Amino acid sequence: MELWFTEKQTESFGITAKVSRTLHTECSPYQRIDVLDTLDYGRMLVLDGMVMCTDRDEFVYHEMIAHVPLNTHPDPKRVLVIGGGDGGTIREVVKHRRVEQVVLAEIDERVIAVSREYFPAIAEGLNDPRVDIQVGDGMAHVRNHKNAYDVIIVDSTEPIGPAEGLFAREFYEGIYEALKPDGLFVAQTESPLFNTDLISRVWRDIASIYPVTRLYLAYVPTYPTGMWSFTIGSKGPDPLKVDLDERESLNTRYYTPDLHRAAFVLPRFVEELLAR
Amino acid sequence: MELWFTEKQTESFGITAKVSRTLHTECSPYQRIDVLDTLDYGRMLVLDGMVMCTDRDEFVYHEMIAHVPLNTHPDPKRVLVIGGGDGGTIREVVKHRRVEQVVLAEIDERVIAVSREYFPAIAEGLNDPRVDIQVGDGMAHVRNHKNAYDVIIVDSTEPIGPAEGLFAREFYEGIYEALKPDGLFVAQTESPLFNTDLISRVWRDIASIYPVTRLYLAYVPTYPTGMWSFTIGSKGPDPLKVDLDERESLNTRYYTPDLHRAAFVLPRFVEELLAR
Repeated sequence: MELWFTEKQTESFGITAKVSRTLHTECSPYQRIDVLDTLDYGRMLVLDGMVMCTDRDEFVYHEMIAHVPLNTHPDPKRVLVIGGGDGGTIREVVKHRRVEQVVLAEIDERVIAVSREYFPAIAEGLNDPRVDIQVGDGMAHVRNHKNAYDVIIVDSTEPIGPAEGLFAREFYEGIYEALKPDGLFVAQTESPLFNTDLISRVWRDIASIYPVTRLYLAYVPTYPTGMWSFTIGSKGPDPLKVDLDERESLNTRYYTPDLHRAAFVLPRFVEELLAR
Repeated sequence: MELWFTEKQTESFGITAKVSRTLHTECSPYQRIDVLDTLDYGRMLVLDGMVMCTDRDEFVYHEMIAHVPLNTHPDPKRVLVIGGGDGGTIREVVKHRRVEQVVLAEIDERVIAVSREYFPAIAEGLNDPRVDIQVGDGMAHVRNHKNAYDVIIVDSTEPIGPAEGLFAREFYEGIYEALKPDGLFVAQTESPLFNTDLISRVWRDIASIYPVTRLYLAYVPTYPTGMWSFTIGSKGPDPLKVDLDERESLNTRYYTPDLHRAAFVLPRFVEELLAR
């Protein structure tokens, strides 16, 4: 028997992968969680039918969502990660020795448990003594912490279902209050090819609140279109003006200081999306 | 009835698209040619079951394979395009006013005819008076033309079947002879995530023949992994040292002078592939 998993990234387009083994299936209070072994991308974490990460390409997303904002901030001592229960973003955050504490606010404790069991190389950062895992609503956490963080990373799922509020203007305002005076945040903001309206709207919302707004891109093969965007809102530090030679060198497979800068150079059609 | 087209990009991974209409199917002497209308990527040209281009994302590939080498050469008067019978690369080449003649060496005249009929916006450049269409073997054309071209663009299909020879060291040596003293060439060289051995080998081969070898990347959603590479071999002009302010400005949707430079900044794992 051949078993194939197909993710319909839209109603009419998808990716399909041959499954060598289904390792886990459950319905948590928040979502369906599946773990599959595939041949080309290795082990795959699937939430509500959408690929969250794979062993083969997760390094791109996790390195780029963590190192760009952390290397932009002059002294990131306190970091908050919202979502990201798989632990991949945390693994990258704790590579920064200057980080003293990182809080993980993940709503679904089952994602954390499943990742610890089936993705040990992704979840390993969760064991770092600086990590404070708080199972609960990231939006509530933000509301209840003012002037608390140097860097906030919004590592959300798609803007439908439980994560919808993480793409709302009110949330970006709440993050502003939760950041210290020279703080900044980053959010994953989907694909500029499929999600044009979302990207334009999120850009306008963040730019209306933060003095510095920047968008950068990375190649994430298992996400829709493979062209993935991240948007930064900053109270001061500018990712394009930072002296990266002063930052500690990191053990990475994708991120480099040169790529930090180059990721902000956008194709013309993306520039035009941001000027709408 | 729902009709879905699935391209198996490997034995165990693929993309799948809902087809609203099948417009054309034929078997030419060289390959099977299909034209499909899809919802997310618009009209799609499929050769031997592999997506060659779609109306929605073809601009990325065609702009990046043409403008990077043409803007690198100080005075590209004579240009050769090998493969690329759909005409998309030619459309971008003829945007450069300095180009006096561009030869298209395409082995399969049916690709040209099908593109003219079903992809008028891609094939339109073929009508430019500077275009000389020569149906035939691109490798033979290269062997028969010495010291003839300023820029050669190898716009091939995958390195299996008829295009296999276009990835061979002997071919790159032939291109060296076909180029004028300050000429350069570019070839599409597949995905650094799936085709690691190919990219390392092609890089070594080209670097052993040409004094300047460079690799750059672009986002092509409908190609495997979405991360697509192009490799340049040059007798002199260096894409990283050119003064792009001196070049004519181009009407593009992806390429910009800043992106010309940024596309050469590689993720660490790609840098490591080239150092193997």
